[in-house]
Amino acid sequence: MLGKDYERQDCSIARTLEVIGERWTLLIVRDAFYGVQRFNDFHAHLDIAKAVLSDRLTGMVDHGILERRADPLHGGRHLYQLTAAGRDLWPVLHALLVWGDHHRHPNSRVFQHAACATELNDNGYCPACDLMPRPEDILTKPRRGRGKLRDDPVAVALRTPHRLLEPIET
Amino acid sequence: MLGKDYERQDCSIARTLEVIGERWTLLIVRDAFYGVQRFNDFHAHLDIAKAVLSDRLTGMVDHGILERRADPLHGGRHLYQLTAAGRDLWPVLHALLVWGDHHRHPNSRVFQHAACATELNDNGYCPACDLMPRPEDILTKPRRGRGKLRDDPVAVALRTPHRLLEPIET
Repeated sequence: MLGKDYERQDCSIARTLEVIGERWTLLIVRDAFYGVQRFNDFHAHLDIAKAVLSDRLTGMVDHGILERRADPLHGGRHLYQLTAAGRDLWPVLHALLVWGDHHRHPNSRVFQHAACATELNDNGYCPACDLMPRPEDILTKPRRGRGKLRDDPVAVALRTPHRLLEPIET
Repeated sequence: MLGKDYERQDCSIARTLEVIGERWTLLIVRDAFYGVQRFNDFHAHLDIAKAVLSDRLTGMVDHGILERRADPLHGGRHLYQLTAAGRDLWPVLHALLVWGDHHRHPNSRVFQHAACATELNDNGYCPACDLMPRPEDILTKPRRGRGKLRDDPVAVALRTPHRLLEPIET
C-alpha cells in the first residue's frame, strides 16, 4: 500500500485521502454524480487509460464508495453507482469546485436547487430555501456559452439540464 | 506536466486538483492551517522525504497558495504561510475531515468557533452563532484521549487548544 496510505497521520483528512486521493478518483466520483454508470461512458468522458479506470473503479468498490451491479442492458457488463458513503462526498466535490471557480476559471456548469431553480451559494446552500439540498435535489446545466469543449456521449447528454445522480442516457 | 493536469476536463474541480491533487499537498495545507510555517516542522510532522516536501512547497508557492518569506529567526531559511487563496481551501479540508470522521474513524481533533466554544457542525457552521467562522476564528484541540500517537514538536504543540493560522511555537 506504499504510496497510498498515510499511516502515521492520526487524522480523518488522511483517512479520506486514502480513499479518494489518487489521481482521477475524484473526477470519477464527479462523473458518478452526473449519472455516469457504465465503464465505457466513464472512459469516453475522462480520456484515461482503461487499465487506470479499471483500477480506480475496483478500488472505489473495495472502499465502499461505489457499488458494482450487473448491467441489465449489456450482459456481462456492470453498472457502477455511488453508495450512501459515496454520495456523502458531494460536499468535498462542491468545495473543490468553488475554489477552482474563484481562483482559476469560472466553472463550466452551474448548480441549482431543483425545487426553486436558485443557484447554490459557495457553501452549497440554497439561499432561497435556507437549506443544503441533497445531491438528488440539485440540477446542473452548462454555464451559458460553455460545455462545448467535448463531444463524447456524456458531454453531449450533459448539455441539457440534468439532476445529479439521475442516470445519463448515452 | 504529464500526470498533474487534466487538460481536457473543462471543470473547476479539475483545475483545483491540478493545484492540490498531488500526494501530501493537502496534508501540508492542513499543517499550514495548524500554524506550521517552517520546513523542519513540516518535515517532522509529516514523515516525508525532504525532496518531496521541498517539491510540494515550491509547487504551492508557484500556484499561489503559499507565500515564502525570509525567516527572521533563522538566517537563510524561510517561512511558508498560506495566502488568501490558500486560506480559501479551508472548506475543502473541512469537508474531507467530515467524510473521514463519519465513514472511517472519528477525527483526532475537534474544531470550535473560538468566540463561543461551540463545536462546528458538518457544514463548518457554528450552530450557536449561525455563521461559518473563518479559519482564524476556529479553535482546534485534541479529542479526549487522542493526539498522543506522535511526539514530534508540532504534535506536542497541538496538544493544547490552538487557533488555526496562529504560528506554532516549536
